[in-house]
Amino acid sequence: MNRVRNVIVAQSGGPSPVINSSLRGIVETCRAMPERFGTVYAGYHGIEGVLKEELLNLSAQSEEEIALLSVTPAAGSIGTCRYKLRPAQKEDFARVIDVFRAHNVGYFFYIGGNDSMDTAHKVAELAESSGLSLIATGVPKTIDNDVGDSEFRLVDHTPGYGSTARYWALTVQSANEENAGSSPADPVLVMQAMGRKIGFIPAAARLADPRRELPLHIYLAEAGVSLEEMADNVNEELRRSGRCMVVVSEGFDVGTLGERRDSFGHTQYSASETTVAQVIVNHLNSVGLAARGAARANVPGTDQRHSMIYASTVDLDEAYRVGQKAVLIAADDASGFMSTILREPGSIYSARFERVPLQEVANSERAFPREWIASNRRDVTDDFVRYARPLIGEDWPTIPLIDGRQRFARLQPTFASQGLSHYIPEAAR
Amino acid sequence: MNRVRNVIVAQSGGPSPVINSSLRGIVETCRAMPERFGTVYAGYHGIEGVLKEELLNLSAQSEEEIALLSVTPAAGSIGTCRYKLRPAQKEDFARVIDVFRAHNVGYFFYIGGNDSMDTAHKVAELAESSGLSLIATGVPKTIDNDVGDSEFRLVDHTPGYGSTARYWALTVQSANEENAGSSPADPVLVMQAMGRKIGFIPAAARLADPRRELPLHIYLAEAGVSLEEMADNVNEELRRSGRCMVVVSEGFDVGTLGERRDSFGHTQYSASETTVAQVIVNHLNSVGLAARGAARANVPGTDQRHSMIYASTVDLDEAYRVGQKAVLIAADDASGFMSTILREPGSIYSARFERVPLQEVANSERAFPREWIASNRRDVTDDFVRYARPLIGEDWPTIPLIDGRQRFARLQPTFASQGLSHYIPEAAR
Repeated sequence: MNRVRNVIVAQSGGPSPVINSSLRGIVETCRAMPERFGTVYAGYHGIEGVLKEELLNLSAQSEEEIALLSVTPAAGSIGTCRYKLRPAQKEDFARVIDVFRAHNVGYFFYIGGNDSMDTAHKVAELAESSGLSLIATGVPKTIDNDVGDSEFRLVDHTPGYGSTARYWALTVQSANEENAGSSPADPVLVMQAMGRKIGFIPAAARLADPRRELPLHIYLAEAGVSLEEMADNVNEELRRSGRCMVVVSEGFDVGTLGERRDSFGHTQYSASETTVAQVIVNHLNSVGLAARGAARANVPGTDQRHSMIYASTVDLDEAYRVGQKAVLIAADDASGFMSTILREPGSIYSARFERVPLQEVANSERAFPREWIASNRRDVTDDFVRYARPLIGEDWPTIPLIDGRQRFARLQPTFASQGLSHYIPEAAR
Repeated sequence: MNRVRNVIVAQSGGPSPVINSSLRGIVETCRAMPERFGTVYAGYHGIEGVLKEELLNLSAQSEEEIALLSVTPAAGSIGTCRYKLRPAQKEDFARVIDVFRAHNVGYFFYIGGNDSMDTAHKVAELAESSGLSLIATGVPKTIDNDVGDSEFRLVDHTPGYGSTARYWALTVQSANEENAGSSPADPVLVMQAMGRKIGFIPAAARLADPRRELPLHIYLAEAGVSLEEMADNVNEELRRSGRCMVVVSEGFDVGTLGERRDSFGHTQYSASETTVAQVIVNHLNSVGLAARGAARANVPGTDQRHSMIYASTVDLDEAYRVGQKAVLIAADDASGFMSTILREPGSIYSARFERVPLQEVANSERAFPREWIASNRRDVTDDFVRYARPLIGEDWPTIPLIDGRQRFARLQPTFASQGLSHYIPEAAR
């Protein structure tokens, strides 16, 4: 019997600048082992594409385009989705197994966060109970760095985080040149960072100024600072430095002070219809900053997770290698694992690539360590800086330009032929 | 009598990634002609620094730091201001002359937009009537590209514009990878561009996709599209492409549809307390986009004018050369001119550096050419693309990194000694 089985890779959730590096690592490593891995398909737009039997043929793509995945941000190449395979969606799980069987799929690589690791684990279990021989392997990914445990034993950091951290380190450096030059007219610049509940992303702004020479405040949602307290801090900073840069988590609780009320006392808009940064700017301007000049807000939004030139070369390399490692784990006939990055002890940064059980990852939860929040609650500690600094690397990545534009990978829309009946994913009905 | 006279350079208004390149061009060219130019001072934070006799000594800075100005964005090095010297402020003008006289200043270089060219012109006139021999020279600068005339005869484009244009070309390319990958969950991405009334900046988003292969809409304020019409366009694009990227000018008129009213019919917030992008996103989500997924907004804010890595190498070079040219004009004993960039005819881009009278520039006004707005009013024409494409250049700039961070210029705080009495600028009293 032919040992060669086909491969499906899918990704889930929000993208990162390096998600395609992991994809490249998977595709190239599978290609290097033709005795084990047959055609590599991508679930087009994640697990939804698997359910719909929309399987993009990655083996049919040229080597050059696959290589270009490393300099192509976000998920435009194979797509992602927010669709979740919940345990109750039994038809969905059965359909996944049907699709795998129909396309002789023996290997499933799922790139994503905690939820995805849980899904990959359940798919593996179900395959086994259905008599389908399947090796399911997780590949970590999230800019939030919230996969794994708080002790960093399951995964030191997730691919994607280093690049978004570098985005903040470098853009805050540039913002400082603006803020220093444009005060006193524009003395306060508020910048809103992603990471609703977990502050690894706003914390990375500290990498712009590890020696604390700049008037930079960092407000993690979990620091529990109120809008009023923040305004006091900012005013104090203005008295001291004449200007202030505020990096704030999008999950910062603006409380009732953030609500605007009309003369009848009705709340005028909710936080969901405006941004935290805007509420803060409006509040700062309303409580007397006006005399000193105006506050303004930058809300980079998705730019912090798809700006390729800010990607970290360390992150790009590690993302490739966790993809590669996942294939090596699968080639070892080991199912139910996630490939992971662990940090070697010692003062010089060095990573190793290992495997950890999917189930352990799925059941774990990582928060931003409380002890890395500075006691003034508007900063992070040097321990955080020591942790995060190596992840942003030393160099600019090399992004090819053709006719002045970035040359991203362009995959051919070559799909597996569909043999199964039409299917509408359960949660989409 | 010693022909050598000192120099004051000042900048005004919003910064750009290349404003310091012009500064470098001025400083290095003055240094090369010690028989004409003495100490080069910067008015610290623009004309306000001149009024306050806060003169940063640029001649005392090392060659290395002056060279690093070319890779240092915004105005952190010498500062800028929004302070305007209005004709009625006669004390201010007299004070400027006093400061010039006290510091043996014979050359005044003013980096800025239309207003600044007007100010430079008036300073030159007043100096003459006061018996002070002064050569005043303007250096154009604005990301808005709104200096000069609509026929591009006084200036083809302003330094700063090419870099912000490149920011939009490249970030929209990256945003497209996100939007393509993340639809259908997040099918609409709204990105807000600077340029309140004049659409050169949002127009540059077309450089991301000159062949119009992407579902990209560009709404200039001056196209006169209503929020309702935009929503119809976006819904049509969603039916066609499943997704849509919207680049909108911050000056887009959201009209009454943008206002939220409570049950009493009171307007709940004004456009000044939220961003145009947010109003658009809220509106799109409220009129039925929800069924297809959600719209979201990126508001890069000042990032588009201080992100150094997105600077155009063409722009950086030209900014240097207009600074250099300004000094050459002054060395010719010609006062009352602005150095300018004009485009050579022909299909291969080539610029030449000339001089034009400050008064002509001050009295001119440039709008975005109506004929460059596409007839569908959600795009710009190929003529615009031909105009703007050369300005973003071919390469990434080289920004040195030290310990993972950008190495920007660091000027020593060496100031001219103050001999005049304390002065509070008229408009600040």
